[in-house]
Amino acid sequence: MLYFIGLGISEKGLSIEALEILRRVDTVFLELYTSIIPDFKLDWLENMLGRKIRVVDREDLEERGGEDILREAKVADVALLTPGDPFIATTHIVLRIEAERRNIKTRIIHSSSIITAAFSSCGLQVYKMGRIVTITIPEPKVGYRPITPYLVLKENLERGLHTLFLLEIRAESGEFLTIPKALELLEDMDRRVGEESIVDDNTLVVGLARVGTPNEYIAAGSLSELKDIEFGPPPYSLIIPGVLHPIEEEALTTLFDCKLEVIEGWRERVKSVLKNT
Amino acid sequence: MLYFIGLGISEKGLSIEALEILRRVDTVFLELYTSIIPDFKLDWLENMLGRKIRVVDREDLEERGGEDILREAKVADVALLTPGDPFIATTHIVLRIEAERRNIKTRIIHSSSIITAAFSSCGLQVYKMGRIVTITIPEPKVGYRPITPYLVLKENLERGLHTLFLLEIRAESGEFLTIPKALELLEDMDRRVGEESIVDDNTLVVGLARVGTPNEYIAAGSLSELKDIEFGPPPYSLIIPGVLHPIEEEALTTLFDCKLEVIEGWRERVKSVLKNT
Repeated sequence: MLYFIGLGISEKGLSIEALEILRRVDTVFLELYTSIIPDFKLDWLENMLGRKIRVVDREDLEERGGEDILREAKVADVALLTPGDPFIATTHIVLRIEAERRNIKTRIIHSSSIITAAFSSCGLQVYKMGRIVTITIPEPKVGYRPITPYLVLKENLERGLHTLFLLEIRAESGEFLTIPKALELLEDMDRRVGEESIVDDNTLVVGLARVGTPNEYIAAGSLSELKDIEFGPPPYSLIIPGVLHPIEEEALTTLFDCKLEVIEGWRERVKSVLKNT
Repeated sequence: MLYFIGLGISEKGLSIEALEILRRVDTVFLELYTSIIPDFKLDWLENMLGRKIRVVDREDLEERGGEDILREAKVADVALLTPGDPFIATTHIVLRIEAERRNIKTRIIHSSSIITAAFSSCGLQVYKMGRIVTITIPEPKVGYRPITPYLVLKENLERGLHTLFLLEIRAESGEFLTIPKALELLEDMDRRVGEESIVDDNTLVVGLARVGTPNEYIAAGSLSELKDIEFGPPPYSLIIPGVLHPIEEEALTTLFDCKLEVIEGWRERVKSVLKNT
């Protein structure tokens, strides 16, 4: 049996069921390269479980196809711990498919994920979430500057939907994209597309750092305001809202001191982008 | 201080951090009317925490505005437990806003949510999720049959995105919408709109019951195949996929024995719905 177990988005995000399983399986593997969990310490988890954990890296899972894990899961009960909710990082589904092909049973133990937590933590409704998109760290050598995040935002706004941007983080090398830098990239994409601007100084933005942890920091305001904020360490995400319900507007003003005039300005601009479909 | 704590989607879905907080706060409230957690028992939780829990209902929270909770949180540490990830049910944000207005600090302890778990449990990529929509229990007396779920599906498909349908459940009265009934309703909406059909016997559908629990049941196949399946007790959800990546197709065939010809047929139909935007 092979369990895929989510570590969640904060240090102690494992569920009670996950703990029970981790205490009884034969081997516990863990990967921490697909994301970063603030303050998470391997020592702490090993002490709590009273057992050793085997750390696997990208090479083990992607180049060697998780062969060690599969071989062990064929004859014993094995758990693989991953940040967030399992399979939100898309690399692990291949391992699950291969396990099932070899007649190894699999089960998923879910946990919190930034995808729902980003919305619930800032008072925006997840039912108005459009397509999610990642803003990647620029590769100056490649010379190719993708505009996908801008295009996804535009499509979502045309339907009045909120856009969640995940900011790339390379856990292995310690590189990450900051919120001000991501906002700059979005502005640059907007300029390059050259249509009527949707990302500029007056765009309403919610910036989220370390969601779900005791040191969570969230700010809501105009893009120019957010560019001057020091959000502290990663991980980060951004939301650019679509059509806001009055209660969502209240959440942004009450919980994060977002200025009403920024919201009102944005409300008018979203109206002009909305497509009557 | 007022903690909003997610119970997650399964019996033992509470996180380690949630447990620590629940053991030290002065009062614990719990609502179970916004969703159903299979096999969750209040007794079990009270025994594990070694304390009593106060159950609140819709009237307490929505008509009386959670006044009891707010008054207590003004002078003590209080936790409110809710199914899934807090605030995914949209009713509780009002309570958080009111708390902050009264200078009561709030914090959210996240947990698993059907929204990400539905995708990760069936091998579909959450990055291709379009707008989410709920299919509600029909109200024959009202005479109004909404077509919103169909319209959302169509918009998502035009962009190649997957659609997650949540099937309404009324925890208080025990009423719920089954998967076969929801599929019938979608077919009926499709017929009433009268455009080129997208929901009929050959539509590719993933049906999910009790996601994240030990008794999870997932089936993937044509709508006509899924209509004949007995999914067992609720909660339920459905996904109608958009453009599938080869690995997503492999997940559906390997993990759920989905027939390749159903996937291939659907692939062609999605192509014809795709809008070049």
